Amino acid sequence: MTSPTTPTKNILLGAFEINGVNLTSQGLWAHPDQHTSRYTELSYWLEVAKILDEGGFDFLFFADSYGYPHMDGETPDVAFEQGAEIPKNDPMLVIPALAAATSRLNFAVTTSTTYEAPYANARRFATLDHLTQGRIAWNVVTTTATVVKELFGSERLVPHDERYAIAEEYLQLSYQLLEGSWEDDAVRADKQARVYADAWKVHKVHHRGTYFQMDGYFNSEPSPQRTPVIFQAGASSAGMEFAARNAEVVFLQGRDAASVAAQVTKLRELVAAAGRDPQSVKAVVGLSAIVGTDRDDAQRRLDDYMSYVNVDAARVYFAQMTGIDLASLDPDLDVSTLSTEQSRTQLARFNGRTAAEAFDEFAKRGMREFILRGSGEDIAQQMIELVEQTGVDGFNYTPFVSPGSYRDFVDKVVPALRARGAVAPAGAGAGETFRERLTGSPRLASDHPGARHNRRNSSQHQN
Amino acid sequence: MTSPTTPTKNILLGAFEINGVNLTSQGLWAHPDQHTSRYTELSYWLEVAKILDEGGFDFLFFADSYGYPHMDGETPDVAFEQGAEIPKNDPMLVIPALAAATSRLNFAVTTSTTYEAPYANARRFATLDHLTQGRIAWNVVTTTATVVKELFGSERLVPHDERYAIAEEYLQLSYQLLEGSWEDDAVRADKQARVYADAWKVHKVHHRGTYFQMDGYFNSEPSPQRTPVIFQAGASSAGMEFAARNAEVVFLQGRDAASVAAQVTKLRELVAAAGRDPQSVKAVVGLSAIVGTDRDDAQRRLDDYMSYVNVDAARVYFAQMTGIDLASLDPDLDVSTLSTEQSRTQLARFNGRTAAEAFDEFAKRGMREFILRGSGEDIAQQMIELVEQTGVDGFNYTPFVSPGSYRDFVDKVVPALRARGAVAPAGAGAGETFRERLTGSPRLASDHPGARHNRRNSSQHQN
Repeated sequence: MTSPTTPTKNILLGAFEINGVNLTSQGLWAHPDQHTSRYTELSYWLEVAKILDEGGFDFLFFADSYGYPHMDGETPDVAFEQGAEIPKNDPMLVIPALAAATSRLNFAVTTSTTYEAPYANARRFATLDHLTQGRIAWNVVTTTATVVKELFGSERLVPHDERYAIAEEYLQLSYQLLEGSWEDDAVRADKQARVYADAWKVHKVHHRGTYFQMDGYFNSEPSPQRTPVIFQAGASSAGMEFAARNAEVVFLQGRDAASVAAQVTKLRELVAAAGRDPQSVKAVVGLSAIVGTDRDDAQRRLDDYMSYVNVDAARVYFAQMTGIDLASLDPDLDVSTLSTEQSRTQLARFNGRTAAEAFDEFAKRGMREFILRGSGEDIAQQMIELVEQTGVDGFNYTPFVSPGSYRDFVDKVVPALRARGAVAPAGAGAGETFRERLTGSPRLASDHPGARHNRRNSSQHQN
Repeated sequence: MTSPTTPTKNILLGAFEINGVNLTSQGLWAHPDQHTSRYTELSYWLEVAKILDEGGFDFLFFADSYGYPHMDGETPDVAFEQGAEIPKNDPMLVIPALAAATSRLNFAVTTSTTYEAPYANARRFATLDHLTQGRIAWNVVTTTATVVKELFGSERLVPHDERYAIAEEYLQLSYQLLEGSWEDDAVRADKQARVYADAWKVHKVHHRGTYFQMDGYFNSEPSPQRTPVIFQAGASSAGMEFAARNAEVVFLQGRDAASVAAQVTKLRELVAAAGRDPQSVKAVVGLSAIVGTDRDDAQRRLDDYMSYVNVDAARVYFAQMTGIDLASLDPDLDVSTLSTEQSRTQLARFNGRTAAEAFDEFAKRGMREFILRGSGEDIAQQMIELVEQTGVDGFNYTPFVSPGSYRDFVDKVVPALRARGAVAPAGAGAGETFRERLTGSPRLASDHPGARHNRRNSSQHQN
């Protein structure tokens, strides 16, 4: 091996996307190399997915929310003018078409435990797991925004910590549906015997909870993974504990190796405290990369991208996610002192900054974490060092322009990573489920709380 | 023209499907020529869709419900053993992949106004309209079954007529979202001017109704059709009136030309009474066809299919749809005297039959309406005569085995219809939206109640 450092594991490579025109950098939709204005077209997503699939990415991740910017009770004009989180289409509906056109790429999609009915949501994910042949993950979010409450006509805004109590019960019910209703071998599809399924291997789910009630059978027969791979991002205490109990992939926030390393350590402690193997949860952090002939060349490209950022759109986008208008604050205020019922995850990123610093940083970077610059070799080396310094298992790659930033990365960085043995060989992983890619097994680990709901093959007649 | 009769219009051809193993004929999943056990695989649906697309079908229709058989508070074992409406996957998620693989086939999918949130449902259909480039329809149903109420943990079962009041308000809200939030030319995507959308051409939807409340902007930018083509089937008085106000394609029930003709007349009267052009609503009726060398040969094939019908599964399937166990009734009871809070549409099919006759007929035919037998030429001729006798605009073709029944139809019947000028020429209709296929225009007709919510291009600044 010619590699200057020897990584200990394959780095997971995800692509972070939204079904809209701006991916966290508000205003960048207008860059000449940006093709996100084609987000409504399946041909655009097929192009992106094929680049990722052939280029060695492990998954394509879709963030989503029904929310859009809202400040002082109104949506400022700049949100529409810059396409800041509005317009936006449903990302889930894109995925099966992308799965049909790819052979090893996995997919993660976001749905909210506050606004989707658990039964319908579980049937959608079971269907996706069938259609993608086990290449699906569910990014579990709790919805934070007042604006969404008003879209759905809900009567009350649920407090932050209660949202996680709801989410916890929602997942328990989802596990019962996905793991507990049909036994693994319930479906025989035996035409000779004229038996499609053994009735005694299909079980009613009875759930009488605080937030949800249900009685009945799950519509969908067992799919390759049963439960989709569970993704979660949450920097609040309630969010981290929820992730430690349920998640298999966790997105961490952070822009320096030390803070990410501390979060990885904290996460693994919480996972262990939840009774699970601390290594069974994969930690992933956001990463952007600007590939140039050298770092200066890359910096010039970054400066060009940054010249498209619209500060007013960034301001309302931040307010959407946190409920806080950074421009209205005392510029010297320490952001750490702020508290909000909305997303604590986004706010936590700016602990220790003043309001002015946070605003400047957010306008430039949005939710991007690490932004690496340099040649492909250089960026690959920086990524390997970040893995060594932080203990993360991979990165969620956030492009500046699409599909150009993806092409740059797969053409220049992935081969350099591969030469160092830091990612899987080209074409590896075809025919396996997402969970097999992560853990070697298609099914939830036995120490995962969902696994206890599975009835593998009961040997006796019961109902 | 060599045609013995001269049809006055192209006959609409739809394919009636469910994302499960039995399409109305319970037990037929086990036939050697039946491939529906592959329903969980995208490759199966791609195969079906390509046959339909290349073979001259206008649309692929997916029925759906979260419900499954339930009798006396239990799901009889035979439902699982015969795959009678369970298992079943979400059909909506299949559609974009099929649209990507076809060029002229349109798609219709069912969702319920009782259990899907209006905002989420409208965003899904707007997304589908984008991804399919205007080739989508929404079959609007009101959910009837107690079993679904218990899956969703709802507190009360809504009475039949109130379900249509809910559906009416649901559609009014959906029209506001789909037609009224974004003006047609709101999106400029002008990179030079750095304006994605004109903020003053995006409008808040305020809805304070009896059943739904919402305030805010719609997520999705204008799609080719804006509102999907509206499908409806409902034989009850409330259902027919709802269809007359809102539907653009209506499924009628009936197994003889006279009763279908009477329904077509009734429908057109109701449509006119609702202030709409009576010809703007397309009437479609179910049709199965068995193609053989002659009628006797076709009958032998039908007898073979019928030998796979499972009477017990048919019994619980009927009970699921109507709440009535036909086997438990006095065999001589006139079915017309029965009344149920569940689907009146299914029950109406058996007006005038005794319980014993209805059970026998339902076991053999399920929800099939006309079952034609003969050579391709013969069936084409029978279809043309049915159109002349009834005034229907087309048929929803219900296969016995898939994809075999589709292949038979496109290989033998469609060419015969085409030779008579009764369907569009091969390949016609590529690049047009579903509504253009039906009416010549991609948008709701001006006399449709949804059209009044559209703000085409407002000339003045407003909000």
